[in-house]
Amino acid sequence: MTFRTCKLLTIFTEAALEKTLIRDIERLGATGYTISDVRGKGSRGLRNSSWEPNSSIRVEVICDQELAEIIVAYFQEHYYANFAMTIFTVDVTFYPSVSLQIL
Amino acid sequence: MTFRTCKLLTIFTEAALEKTLIRDIERLGATGYTISDVRGKGSRGLRNSSWEPNSSIRVEVICDQELAEIIVAYFQEHYYANFAMTIFTVDVTFYPSVSLQIL
Amino acid sequence: MTFRTCKLLTIFTEAALEKTLIRDIERLGATGYTISDVRGKGSRGLRNSSWEPNSSIRVEVICDQELAEIIVAYFQEHYYANFAMTIFTVDVTFYPSVSLQIL
Repeated sequence: MTFRTCKLLTIFTEAALEKTLIRDIERLGATGYTISDVRGKGSRGLRNSSWEPNSSIRVEVICDQELAEIIVAYFQEHYYANFAMTIFTVDVTFYPSVSLQIL
Repeated sequence: MTFRTCKLLTIFTEAALEKTLIRDIERLGATGYTISDVRGKGSRGLRNSSWEPNSSIRVEVICDQELAEIIVAYFQEHYYANFAMTIFTVDVTFYPSVSLQIL
Repeated sequence: MTFRTCKLLTIFTEAALEKTLIRDIERLGATGYTISDVRGKGSRGLRNSSWEPNSSIRVEVICDQELAEIIVAYFQEHYYANFAMTIFTVDVTFYPSVSLQIL
């Protein structure tokens, strides 16, 4: 069974950013992404943002370590100051399709 | 790039518990949480609970190992006997904002 | 605190497959699963599938390494050629209920 160790990059943030983040992610080099609706509460230093129910999203990208760091650095620079945003990565074992193995 | 190794604590459980669990989580020390709607089926020993579609939730908390264990122990003691509840943790690399790094 | 290291198997795929995949997963030996609605985009080689909003699902199964590999192999053989499907696993620390510990 062929597999590859990758990063699953997860971003919890404001739903208003969805289109902008997708554009960023694709431009930075990701070939896919997954979005889902979430609700929750985050406290970011003194901003103490409270999120409205259903106004937040989870964005997920499977990518290599290098692209994950590029996306994290870009988002930290452009969004961390003004938006509620939580980012983390986890190591995953990814099972690519045969066509992707050839590429 | 600053990062910290944390735990992502995930709980799949009955939607009716949402407000109660949020209160517990905040009281036990978490500064944030994420909720999303899920559906599914779990079998817990002989109870063999079958969940109605959309009546379940995923609760996620990013925290350190110590708080994760406190929450797990509390939930096991208070909910495992009477509610369908699945709990697991995974190691994540968390990228905090600058303001959180100072705190 | 009793815990067990397990696999969290995650599948992103087309919503039309939901009932079929659940039947497969249960027949192959899983005792539970979780489904949630997602949207996103995946590129699978030359097919370049673009998913309609809300027409995709996330399927999650907590299981041991052996069952995870059985499910991955089955899905790769039966669905990878004709459906948009992304599969990955991650190591999780699972906290079973007492009744499950006895089994």
